[in-house]
Amino acid sequence: MKLSDKIARCDESPIRKFHPYAVAAKKRGIKIHHLNIGQPDIQTPPAYFEALEAFRRPVLEYAPSPGIPELIEAVRGYYARVGVSYGADEILITTGGSEALLMAMLCILDEGDEVLVPEPFYPNYHTFITMAGGRLCPIATSPEENYQFASREKIEPLIHEKTRAILFATPGNPTGTTLRAEEIQLLADIAKERGLYMICDEVYREFVYDGSPLTSAGKLADMDENLILVDSVSKRFSACGARIGALITRNKQLMRGAIKIAQARLSVATLDQLGAAALYGVDAAYFDATREEYRRRRDTCYKKLMEIPGVFACAPQGAFYTMATLPVDDTEAFQLFLLNEFEDKGETVMFAPGSGFYATEGAGKSEIRIAYVLRCEDLERALDLLRMAIERYNAR
Amino acid sequence: MKLSDKIARCDESPIRKFHPYAVAAKKRGIKIHHLNIGQPDIQTPPAYFEALEAFRRPVLEYAPSPGIPELIEAVRGYYARVGVSYGADEILITTGGSEALLMAMLCILDEGDEVLVPEPFYPNYHTFITMAGGRLCPIATSPEENYQFASREKIEPLIHEKTRAILFATPGNPTGTTLRAEEIQLLADIAKERGLYMICDEVYREFVYDGSPLTSAGKLADMDENLILVDSVSKRFSACGARIGALITRNKQLMRGAIKIAQARLSVATLDQLGAAALYGVDAAYFDATREEYRRRRDTCYKKLMEIPGVFACAPQGAFYTMATLPVDDTEAFQLFLLNEFEDKGETVMFAPGSGFYATEGAGKSEIRIAYVLRCEDLERALDLLRMAIERYNAR
Repeated sequence: MKLSDKIARCDESPIRKFHPYAVAAKKRGIKIHHLNIGQPDIQTPPAYFEALEAFRRPVLEYAPSPGIPELIEAVRGYYARVGVSYGADEILITTGGSEALLMAMLCILDEGDEVLVPEPFYPNYHTFITMAGGRLCPIATSPEENYQFASREKIEPLIHEKTRAILFATPGNPTGTTLRAEEIQLLADIAKERGLYMICDEVYREFVYDGSPLTSAGKLADMDENLILVDSVSKRFSACGARIGALITRNKQLMRGAIKIAQARLSVATLDQLGAAALYGVDAAYFDATREEYRRRRDTCYKKLMEIPGVFACAPQGAFYTMATLPVDDTEAFQLFLLNEFEDKGETVMFAPGSGFYATEGAGKSEIRIAYVLRCEDLERALDLLRMAIERYNAR
Repeated sequence: MKLSDKIARCDESPIRKFHPYAVAAKKRGIKIHHLNIGQPDIQTPPAYFEALEAFRRPVLEYAPSPGIPELIEAVRGYYARVGVSYGADEILITTGGSEALLMAMLCILDEGDEVLVPEPFYPNYHTFITMAGGRLCPIATSPEENYQFASREKIEPLIHEKTRAILFATPGNPTGTTLRAEEIQLLADIAKERGLYMICDEVYREFVYDGSPLTSAGKLADMDENLILVDSVSKRFSACGARIGALITRNKQLMRGAIKIAQARLSVATLDQLGAAALYGVDAAYFDATREEYRRRRDTCYKKLMEIPGVFACAPQGAFYTMATLPVDDTEAFQLFLLNEFEDKGETVMFAPGSGFYATEGAGKSEIRIAYVLRCEDLERALDLLRMAIERYNAR
């Protein structure tokens, strides 16, 4: 039985595909330090669970397709505090940022259309683009330039008649790169000049470590038709399991298209929306404490990485990821070595091999992505394990 | 800014598009009896809410992409009671039956591929097929034949090289038609002979009123490669707002494809999965009471409909929908009349106009779909309103 060509073009998650080997290692009694997945260990604000417990209606009904009014209002209020005014009909609540991304792609892409994405990228961008029949066109970057991509020289030669959009996250996953205001403006200028959608994934907005105030591409002038924001409560409130996100745009035609999809899938889970609405009432101190904790982890991670001979990394400015270039030939083979052969005092470490974050064949083979979502003492131990493993791997 | 061709080909929900007029009517103080939407009023079993309250972990984490083991085991146990044995890796938990349908389409359809669907159909089938780049090819039926479609004469002439699947629900939405075992076998035979997927939407499985035991297309022999089941807790446990469904197949390649999509969207909401797992512990008496209540409603609805001069309907055998042919020229115009002009003692009624359930141009204009999800006394009043409104509409 034939499957679709597009599903064949999709890859398995490079972050999750080592799972069976991890299970086997755990069965042998090995403790694994997980630097491979962006699952924060920060406590979810209790307001979420309290909102669910306060639900007293006898029937768990469908919610309205665009989202419950309480949550849409909460998101509007949040954006007002960031300095952007959105109408209720410019915010569509989605099942995680993931659904917002897929909806955006389905609304703008037909077979063979292209989306420009700086490389290395969040691998699921590739899947969402491919699901919609499109192609991901990578904008090449390099570790030595701190993965910088916002330049006319890099982007303009890639634009042709099939190019429909530019998609990026800031702060970025997997690089932690955070765009400066003038870089975002440049990307907006290019999108506007060339008639492209600019899809800005801002789910890590709160996680910036240089003290700059919260901001959003939503502040850009004259981008009403071009701009699509993707947002989520997953990282902001450490509520990944809620699966609550949003697609935000002032482009009325695009929103009408997205609403068609929203109606077809009926609604987003009712209770999770109530919980998410309550999360937006959390006070600023929550974010300050969380940001400070991640800043410490970022510093620990960067310092420990740079102490490993032959490792190259840039100090990430945001999110909770960093790419690192290791002195090994192939980080996929090295990850298998870590899970199948290496251990120190019954412990090993997992990361996400770099090649899964690249569309360019052969790129990223010496790189890894680290999610620094562990407490500092665990991070130190995990990176000590990484150093020992590199030595042993190269001494084989 | 151009949208995709495929989003332009999608329709707004015919069930939800009269919503603004309903809001306006309510603002004028009109009470609306809602026969237009399949939102049951049956109480959600408290086990759902109790499972959520029992959650005590500090972080609301992502669930595994294929679903939490407790829920997969619950679904397996349920199918074992229906008489079908599924492995844990043959069940993928989805965000409602909706996501299972979209995933199935994305896995099997490329641009221009076709899916055979008996007409009238659940309108969202059209959207999911179109999102995947496919085309819905309607199998024509007629009210006079009780919307019967399982015949070689109707189906075989429609199959050509682009045909990839046959998709249907039994019991059916919007018709309530429930396929006999020999009809399902015939559809399976055709699918097998012609190399088609057979996608069987069984979300209304419990709602059959002729006393026959629970069954599933999963019992068919030799259909491991061809069969995809779509399931959901929404109607079974009156838990529409949980958004928990499943894609079930023994086709390993197809499941690998679906898992790629599942990984890209990360996971289904964690707490809703725990709640849904608890629902499967509800005892058989719950279903018996619910089924008996719906049977009474079905009987009331059918009896009252047949008392209206000029109305034609078939006694629906399952689900909680019926199609009815009215003695009016255009049921969309009639629905607008009901919302904008008609009222009796400050009350009116909503249904879903028939044309939205057809792909064939001009078909279904005199038909409506009724969701008999109200208590019998409210149903009686709603259908009395319908009779009065038909008289007044035709006397204008």
